[in-house]
Amino acid sequence: MFQPYTLHNYFRSSTSIRVRIALNLKQLDYDYVGVALLEDQQHSPEFLARNPQGLVPTLAGTDGANLSQSLAIMEYLDEVHPEPPLLPGNAFERARIRSLAQLIACEIHPVNNLRILKYLKQNLAADRDAVSEWFRHWVALGFEALEARLTSEAGTGAFCHGDTPTLADICLYAQALNNRRFEVDMAAYPFSNAIIGRCSDQPAFAAAEPARQPDAV
Amino acid sequence: MFQPYTLHNYFRSSTSIRVRIALNLKQLDYDYVGVALLEDQQHSPEFLARNPQGLVPTLAGTDGANLSQSLAIMEYLDEVHPEPPLLPGNAFERARIRSLAQLIACEIHPVNNLRILKYLKQNLAADRDAVSEWFRHWVALGFEALEARLTSEAGTGAFCHGDTPTLADICLYAQALNNRRFEVDMAAYPFSNAIIGRCSDQPAFAAAEPARQPDAV
Repeated sequence: MFQPYTLHNYFRSSTSIRVRIALNLKQLDYDYVGVALLEDQQHSPEFLARNPQGLVPTLAGTDGANLSQSLAIMEYLDEVHPEPPLLPGNAFERARIRSLAQLIACEIHPVNNLRILKYLKQNLAADRDAVSEWFRHWVALGFEALEARLTSEAGTGAFCHGDTPTLADICLYAQALNNRRFEVDMAAYPFSNAIIGRCSDQPAFAAAEPARQPDAV
Repeated sequence: MFQPYTLHNYFRSSTSIRVRIALNLKQLDYDYVGVALLEDQQHSPEFLARNPQGLVPTLAGTDGANLSQSLAIMEYLDEVHPEPPLLPGNAFERARIRSLAQLIACEIHPVNNLRILKYLKQNLAADRDAVSEWFRHWVALGFEALEARLTSEAGTGAFCHGDTPTLADICLYAQALNNRRFEVDMAAYPFSNAIIGRCSDQPAFAAAEPARQPDAV
C-alpha cells in the first residue's frame, strides 16, 4: 500500500510548494520530512536511494515505493483522489490546463532553479546582477506569454481555467512566490496577478507557503 | 471539431520530434507545417496568435483551437486516441512513466534549449567550449539519474516501462538525438542506450527523425 504519504521536501522549494498545495486541496494528511538543501541532504546516500536525481519533492509510501517529479506526483494524486479535480473538463480543457502548467513548470522554473543559478555563478563567473537579470529575463518571457494566453483564450475564469483552482494555478502560485524573492515587478501581469491573489486567499495555498512549514528558518 | 490535426513544428526541435513520434505511434495523419526557427518565423504575428510563447510544437485543429507544450499535446492524444497507450498501467505505473518523462522534459531539455544556449553566448560571453560543457553537464546529471532509476526500479522492461514504448521513451529518444549533436558519449549509460536503440528500430520513431521531415535542410 502506497499510503499514508510521506513528503520529503524543502520549505522554500517551489516544486515542493506545488505538491503541498495539491495535498492540501485534496485534504490528504501526510508526514512532512524536511530535506535541508543548504546542508546538501538531497545528496546523502539515504536520499539518493529514494530519488537518484537528488531532487525534492519526493513522495513516499509505506511500501518503500517513491515518486518524484512534482507534476507526476500531482497527476498521481488527482487519479487516486479525484475530488476536487486538479484537471477538470474534457480532453481539450485538460490539455489546456496542462499546457498552462507546463509553460511554467517546463519553461520558467527549470531554468531558474537553484542549481542553475549556482552554475552561472561558479562556472560562468556571473555576478549577482547578472544572475538576477537571468532570472527576470526568463520570468518575463514566460509571464508575457502566460498573460497573453489567459486574456485571450477561452476557458479562463476566476482561476487559470474556470472558477476553481487547477494544476495551472498551483504552478502559477508556486512560481509567484519565487518571483517575490527576486523582486519581479508583477504589475506588468495584472491578469495573472489577480489570479495569484485569489490563490493566496485559499487556505490550501496559504498553508503550503514556506514560512508555515516545520523546516522554515 | 479539433481534428484533422496540423502540426506546426521544426524538423530538428526535440519537442517537435516527441509529438511526431506520438502521432506516428497512434497512426494519426496530420498536416506538417514547418516553422523556420532560424528565420524567426516563431515570432511572426501569425504564429504568436497561435501560440503567444512563440515555441514549437503547436498542434492546431480545424476549429481554430491550438494546443502547445509537447507533454500536454501527447497526453491529449493519449486521452482521445487511447491505442496504443502512451501511459499504460495503474496510477502508480502511470506516475512512474510521467516522472521518467519529466526527468528529461523538465530537467534536461529546458536548460539546453536553443534560446538558453544563445543567451549564454550573447549575454554571459560563454564561448563554444563553455556552451558545450554546459550542455553536457546537465545531460550527464540527468542521464546518471535516469540510468540509476532504469536499472533499480521495478517496471523497467525492454523500454523505460514495460515492453512497449511509452511517453518516457518518446522523451528519451528525442533527447538522445539532441545529445548526438553535442557529441555526448552515451557509453556511460548502457541501459538507457539499449532502450534508445530499440526505439530507433521502431518505424514510428524512425519516421519522426529530423532528416526525414519536409523542412529538413
